[in-house]
Amino acid sequence: MRILKLGGSVVTDKDRPFTPATGNIMRLADEIESSGPQPLVVVHGGGSYGHPVAKEHSISGGLKRRDQLAGFSRTHQAMVELNRIIVDALLDAGVPAFSLSTSTFVTTTARRVTELDASIVRALLGHGMVPVLYGDAVLDTQQGFAILSGDQLVAMLAHTLRAERIVMGCDVDGVYTADPKLARDARLIPRLSLRELDGMVRIGEALNTDVTGGMLGKVREATGAVEAGVEVVIVNAGEPGRVGAALRGEKVMGTVLIL
Amino acid sequence: MRILKLGGSVVTDKDRPFTPATGNIMRLADEIESSGPQPLVVVHGGGSYGHPVAKEHSISGGLKRRDQLAGFSRTHQAMVELNRIIVDALLDAGVPAFSLSTSTFVTTTARRVTELDASIVRALLGHGMVPVLYGDAVLDTQQGFAILSGDQLVAMLAHTLRAERIVMGCDVDGVYTADPKLARDARLIPRLSLRELDGMVRIGEALNTDVTGGMLGKVREATGAVEAGVEVVIVNAGEPGRVGAALRGEKVMGTVLIL
Repeated sequence: MRILKLGGSVVTDKDRPFTPATGNIMRLADEIESSGPQPLVVVHGGGSYGHPVAKEHSISGGLKRRDQLAGFSRTHQAMVELNRIIVDALLDAGVPAFSLSTSTFVTTTARRVTELDASIVRALLGHGMVPVLYGDAVLDTQQGFAILSGDQLVAMLAHTLRAERIVMGCDVDGVYTADPKLARDARLIPRLSLRELDGMVRIGEALNTDVTGGMLGKVREATGAVEAGVEVVIVNAGEPGRVGAALRGEKVMGTVLIL
Repeated sequence: MRILKLGGSVVTDKDRPFTPATGNIMRLADEIESSGPQPLVVVHGGGSYGHPVAKEHSISGGLKRRDQLAGFSRTHQAMVELNRIIVDALLDAGVPAFSLSTSTFVTTTARRVTELDASIVRALLGHGMVPVLYGDAVLDTQQGFAILSGDQLVAMLAHTLRAERIVMGCDVDGVYTADPKLARDARLIPRLSLRELDGMVRIGEALNTDVTGGMLGKVREATGAVEAGVEVVIVNAGEPGRVGAALRGEKVMGTVLIL
């Protein structure tokens, strides 16, 4: 069982609200189609669909005023629309994708998923279908509602479904020794152990910055999966062929998380 | 707790594939908004969105060939799109609507819902929100997949949530003594007992037709709810004001089902 995360910056144009990255989506649909028959779950992020709406209505901080309820719903509506585009593209490419609405069956407690009833995901996989979920605005038992990130959802699904491999498709080549946009000598780390990762997180916290240029938050969600024996590969989904190769288990430019 | 069913022929143009009945949807959103604060769940049908796609791929008969899987997904995709339009209209009218994807949390066994985990519906109602569900292509434990009608979903929700009233918004004024499109002397039945209904169903079966002009199938799903003490009112949702009045519990032209 494989789980593919498609970052919001890969499937949308981050600088233009409500704009899908149609070229990326269609190419990735083809890469998924030709990646082999092993069971697959796809999870995508929000990019320029979910994020601006959630921010406008302060959804991640929880329910404080009744007029936020419409914003909570509109954040979900934005994700439904992006998901519709992605599932349609997968179907057009010949992938038997099926949309699952995250907020319909997942709730959080203090922003964390503590339990997940994955029976519908298993049932779809049993028919050879590819469930497609997404980061979403969800109900939260403590703060009313919350934002459940696609990264947290991926980690939870990997745990529940005992996934063998997680492929995280991002807009950078992997985890770097420093932010590659700022530091000339930044080097891609092909294999990163949890201990090294922990060290980088601590340096980042001391400097009050993410030394790798925004990858640590994503990567940290996956540490539990790595500890459970799941192979976690971070690749640049904006570069043709890398997601497909990673899904097939081939050697590919990127960062593999190891114990 | 009230449940409003909006028939597919009310919210779509039945003769044009993928065409919402925008005027009806906007007007009904306003009627719902001004129908009072009592908790409400909305369920809508498929009309020219779900039905043609489901028919093309023979979804209601179940999974027989692998190439139907994409059609199963595309039927759901069509319903997602119609639901998005309706939820957006409700939000625009000031109703704190929230979309729930039926197939994500409801499955059938031999085309029937035997159990429903309505915790997400209850949680949304607890926040004063209006959950919006729909008839959908769902997984079926016996035949792979099936079509779950909005009418069956309404009856199940009414049972599970102990609803006080079901308002069924159709494109006719209620149940008639004969098909009003064919018989000049057809009369609207303001109050219809389950015993009378049963007699009409039997006459219809003997004549191999629905003597009321297509209303009996819908009405029959609601008989269990009537027996459980739920008030069931059938009104013409195409006529301004009737759905609003029925939701407020006012006397309105239509058919009330009684024990």
